[in-house]
Amino acid sequence: MSLTIFFAAPSVWDEYRDLLPMLLSQAGIAAKVVTDAADPTTVDYIIYAPSAPLQDFTPFTRCKAVLSLWAGVERIVGNATLTQPLCRMVDTGLTEGMVEWVVGHSLRHHLGMDRHIINPEHSWNPTCPPLARERVVAMLGMGALGTACAQALAALNFNVRGWSRTAKLIDGLSCDHGEAGLESVLRDADIVVTLLPKTAETENLLNAQRLGWMKPGAVILNPGRGPLIDDDALLAALDTGHISHATLDVFRVEPLPEGHAYWRHPRVTVTPHIAADTRPTGAARVLVENIRRGEAGEPFLNLVDRARGY
Amino acid sequence: MSLTIFFAAPSVWDEYRDLLPMLLSQAGIAAKVVTDAADPTTVDYIIYAPSAPLQDFTPFTRCKAVLSLWAGVERIVGNATLTQPLCRMVDTGLTEGMVEWVVGHSLRHHLGMDRHIINPEHSWNPTCPPLARERVVAMLGMGALGTACAQALAALNFNVRGWSRTAKLIDGLSCDHGEAGLESVLRDADIVVTLLPKTAETENLLNAQRLGWMKPGAVILNPGRGPLIDDDALLAALDTGHISHATLDVFRVEPLPEGHAYWRHPRVTVTPHIAADTRPTGAARVLVENIRRGEAGEPFLNLVDRARGY
Repeated sequence: MSLTIFFAAPSVWDEYRDLLPMLLSQAGIAAKVVTDAADPTTVDYIIYAPSAPLQDFTPFTRCKAVLSLWAGVERIVGNATLTQPLCRMVDTGLTEGMVEWVVGHSLRHHLGMDRHIINPEHSWNPTCPPLARERVVAMLGMGALGTACAQALAALNFNVRGWSRTAKLIDGLSCDHGEAGLESVLRDADIVVTLLPKTAETENLLNAQRLGWMKPGAVILNPGRGPLIDDDALLAALDTGHISHATLDVFRVEPLPEGHAYWRHPRVTVTPHIAADTRPTGAARVLVENIRRGEAGEPFLNLVDRARGY
Repeated sequence: MSLTIFFAAPSVWDEYRDLLPMLLSQAGIAAKVVTDAADPTTVDYIIYAPSAPLQDFTPFTRCKAVLSLWAGVERIVGNATLTQPLCRMVDTGLTEGMVEWVVGHSLRHHLGMDRHIINPEHSWNPTCPPLARERVVAMLGMGALGTACAQALAALNFNVRGWSRTAKLIDGLSCDHGEAGLESVLRDADIVVTLLPKTAETENLLNAQRLGWMKPGAVILNPGRGPLIDDDALLAALDTGHISHATLDVFRVEPLPEGHAYWRHPRVTVTPHIAADTRPTGAARVLVENIRRGEAGEPFLNLVDRARGY
């Protein structure tokens, strides 16, 4: 019997229109992909972007899983009508893109590139930067993305100190947890990367007190979620120079509004939410694999824990 | 019997004054380190910077090796009075620093960081860059430094195409050689890294013809030696935009003279010969190991082949 897959993310349908049926067929899954659920009771799986118009999942009585195209599911995880298993997107392209952004900007700040990129005085000061092995990078968030970034930084000899809310054991990487762990990691780090999901517990994780724990002159990279940082507290710490630079990819409001202080601050670099993007080819493989698992009665990949919120 | 080691690099003596005797003693080598060779016939080893005043090695009749503090020995390799074994410096710190510079600037250009670092219009254009696996990096020069850089770039999924003057087989890395190999590698690459020694054969390696082989919009990173590139040909290719950017760490004359076109060119980033520097701790270990080898009759590390010039 053929499955009905409802593709409820109209803005990206063009990128998946040919790809999804091809990969489903290659996986031996008989299915039709529809963009209009005339009869919701016939839908087996929903492929979903949290920005999509669909908000009431009640009529989808046969739906076995809602498969998000996004890694961040905070917009949808609290939807009481969504009672089906919910899976986040964790695809290779997304992880690779994130690793490249985090490693690239870590090296940029480590090497002090900006003073060579912008050097109107033609200043020649041949002082070598320290080696990466003399720098500590704090990775706040040791999920799939944080762990991949930590491993790539460690491979370049950075001293990586991971931190997660709950205790974790990760091969070959130091990983602290809890409030005491956070203070110790922040006091130690030259570069702090925030790569946590947005939950009630992580909102304003970097507030004035915790920014105060950081080493004078430390740098912040936020490719995670805008609300992880208390914007006013960060701007105050940048004004005094306590934080020497912040490179931010995510914001409470996107696009970052013209007139926002981050645009004008000389110690802030804005990147336009490009650190990690879902690439169709990798994402479609993950979707198809989860549908295969659903049909085979195997556990879903990247199943969201509703209590934790990610 | 105690060895006499002549430290003929006065400008960096302060960094080695305590370190060298300590490491020699730890290695069980009885030696005194002097900065003045009152009687050249008593000197067993010379530690040397090619910029040092010493140019006539004839009086050092007992000297078993000249140990350069620099990786590049082109200033000294043609000195006819230097008949002793000559060793280049290849230390971990130098390799690590080079890898950090090359990977950092490769990621900078790959991710298009400059347009976010300098963005006076506050433009928000959330187009993701391609993944590193969609980029080709040409590594011209597959010695110790080039190979380490190539491996680090490959670990980040860049497609690395190595090239060396003579055929080489390097585990897991594609490596071409000769003129035909050079053309193929240059035509393919998005980023070209020049990391060859300066010899008669490598001077102006990137001349107008070979720059013309490069992909329109490709980027050049030169952390090797200034003369590897024909400066006028590069400036012409930058003017037309055929080469979209050059990030240069080394120059024919250093410091790069005020008024040089590279300082003013909008498509050039100058870094002040900081890609790789000899760090005393790592370098001193290599010096002591070579002295130990010399005394034990074992082959020297990083012995220069005078015919090849490196």
